[in-house]
Amino acid sequence: MYKIIIDTKGSDKGPGVIVAGACQALDKFDNLEVVLVGDYDFIFDEVKRLGADLNRIEIINAPDEINNYDNPMTAVFEKPNSSLIVALDTYSKRDDICGMLNSGNTGALLMGSMRFLAGEKRMRPAMAAVMFNSSGTLTCVLDSGSVVDCNAETLVHYAHLGSELMKKMYGIENPRVALLSNGSEPTKGNKVVKEAHKLLAESELNFVGNVEGNTALGGACDVLVCDGFAGNLVLKVTEGTAKRLLTDIVKYAKKTGSQEAMQIFNHLMKAYDVASLGGGILLGISKTVIKTRGTADEKAIVSTTEMLLNMAQNKEVYDKEKLKEIL
Amino acid sequence: MYKIIIDTKGSDKGPGVIVAGACQALDKFDNLEVVLVGDYDFIFDEVKRLGADLNRIEIINAPDEINNYDNPMTAVFEKPNSSLIVALDTYSKRDDICGMLNSGNTGALLMGSMRFLAGEKRMRPAMAAVMFNSSGTLTCVLDSGSVVDCNAETLVHYAHLGSELMKKMYGIENPRVALLSNGSEPTKGNKVVKEAHKLLAESELNFVGNVEGNTALGGACDVLVCDGFAGNLVLKVTEGTAKRLLTDIVKYAKKTGSQEAMQIFNHLMKAYDVASLGGGILLGISKTVIKTRGTADEKAIVSTTEMLLNMAQNKEVYDKEKLKEIL
Repeated sequence: MYKIIIDTKGSDKGPGVIVAGACQALDKFDNLEVVLVGDYDFIFDEVKRLGADLNRIEIINAPDEINNYDNPMTAVFEKPNSSLIVALDTYSKRDDICGMLNSGNTGALLMGSMRFLAGEKRMRPAMAAVMFNSSGTLTCVLDSGSVVDCNAETLVHYAHLGSELMKKMYGIENPRVALLSNGSEPTKGNKVVKEAHKLLAESELNFVGNVEGNTALGGACDVLVCDGFAGNLVLKVTEGTAKRLLTDIVKYAKKTGSQEAMQIFNHLMKAYDVASLGGGILLGISKTVIKTRGTADEKAIVSTTEMLLNMAQNKEVYDKEKLKEIL
Repeated sequence: MYKIIIDTKGSDKGPGVIVAGACQALDKFDNLEVVLVGDYDFIFDEVKRLGADLNRIEIINAPDEINNYDNPMTAVFEKPNSSLIVALDTYSKRDDICGMLNSGNTGALLMGSMRFLAGEKRMRPAMAAVMFNSSGTLTCVLDSGSVVDCNAETLVHYAHLGSELMKKMYGIENPRVALLSNGSEPTKGNKVVKEAHKLLAESELNFVGNVEGNTALGGACDVLVCDGFAGNLVLKVTEGTAKRLLTDIVKYAKKTGSQEAMQIFNHLMKAYDVASLGGGILLGISKTVIKTRGTADEKAIVSTTEMLLNMAQNKEVYDKEKLKEIL
């Protein structure tokens, strides 16, 4: 059995969605047990109402919540009874738990992780988003939105973390590392990126140079290094544009009455379904933590739980064969 | 007649494409005359070969070229005989020319523009990309890729330039200005963005707050303010994602033999055709300059020439009715 701790609070959609997602995951994975942290009574009522297997559920009461308006730096000290802090504290102390899932304030999660699950270097953790690229392989984008002000050394640190992840989790022997910039030439980039380019070129990593936004997820690299501001932009602009084109296909279908347009829409939706991609992996800390987006629905909670299960079993996080089927 | 000066060098595709585009524009617009700057003999042979109206073409010889590997800071001084510098020098001295088109080294164009076409404040010009958003209106993104290291004051300056453009050129009375960030809350953003947020909130501009990458081109703002690194990312990730989905539709069409899928592809291609969107408008200088991307083809040269013609006549740069037809 694999035990995963889930912070039920902090989500944009409320704790009900998180608890429901956890129950669906229990249904789907026989080898899963969950520790749910939040309002005891609420969680108890919900899991009972949903008919979940109570033998595989542990509930830990935490009355307080860290929300998106809380200051990450201070909240982790000022709210010791928040579900996030209680979950991190529990996770740090117990060896029977192999993964943690959170969908709240990213900054507070990072601060809290540093405090309770600090890695060897005690650096601020990075958040990696492992995504399907258009070549049908995987690209690890980091930092994907946690640390927005980075210096060149931090970017190099991220390159190492991402490289390590792609080696360990995905069996890629010599991961190709690229640096996100506004031009492919080494002279392109802001000050930090230009400096990072030099350092990466001198490093022992398999550095393949700069990539631009239009080719970043084209499959030319296994690890895409950037600061959290740029990483967030890459993920969100990708999402926004995909949504826009999909909406246009629906409009076209309505305008023309085309059945086939709706089939194409469904096909693409399946391929680009954000929820099925799971969450961001925190790197540079001592245990495995995955952060889903605040808007994560039940399905996203299930797929993120699957990611954690796979990571605990040292399995590949995504099923490549399944991917080939889709596209 | 409206006379536009075109730098034929610096393009990724070579001067032939630029000259051919200029000839197509002459065919399309009766009220257009062009000044082509570059290798005299090459241009002369090309325009003759293409059967263009020689009475509406002036050729200025400039044997040298500033390419993408040249340092913008030094190239504008070290290459006085380059087509870019000759074009800027000519444009600055002649009142009969109402617009300039370039498709080469963006940095050098900015440096050169500052030197020859400096605005009142002598600030580094910004490059604005005016794009269709998903609500079917227009959003001006600036800076769209020229100045990658910006401070908060520069971002506020861009907000003013963009606001002015949308008022003057598109008749928008009180343009809504948004700041690109990694979260909608005022506390989100890197140091520069957080500071700019405060300054914009205190300004007399119609500041509507932060927008994120997924909603940036959703129609909630008329002016999207960001540094050139982020602006470049927004444009290029949008392009890359659109291309990816379009490619997936073609794959689907091939796999299923669906005729309708190809029709949808053609429909979307028409709507998202990058070439038809023209180029980036330089703001904060004394005359009108538009920069097309290095990979611009003949069609892009024609549509950018149309933008310059419309700007010279104080017409709206895009035809909104035409837009409504497409989507």
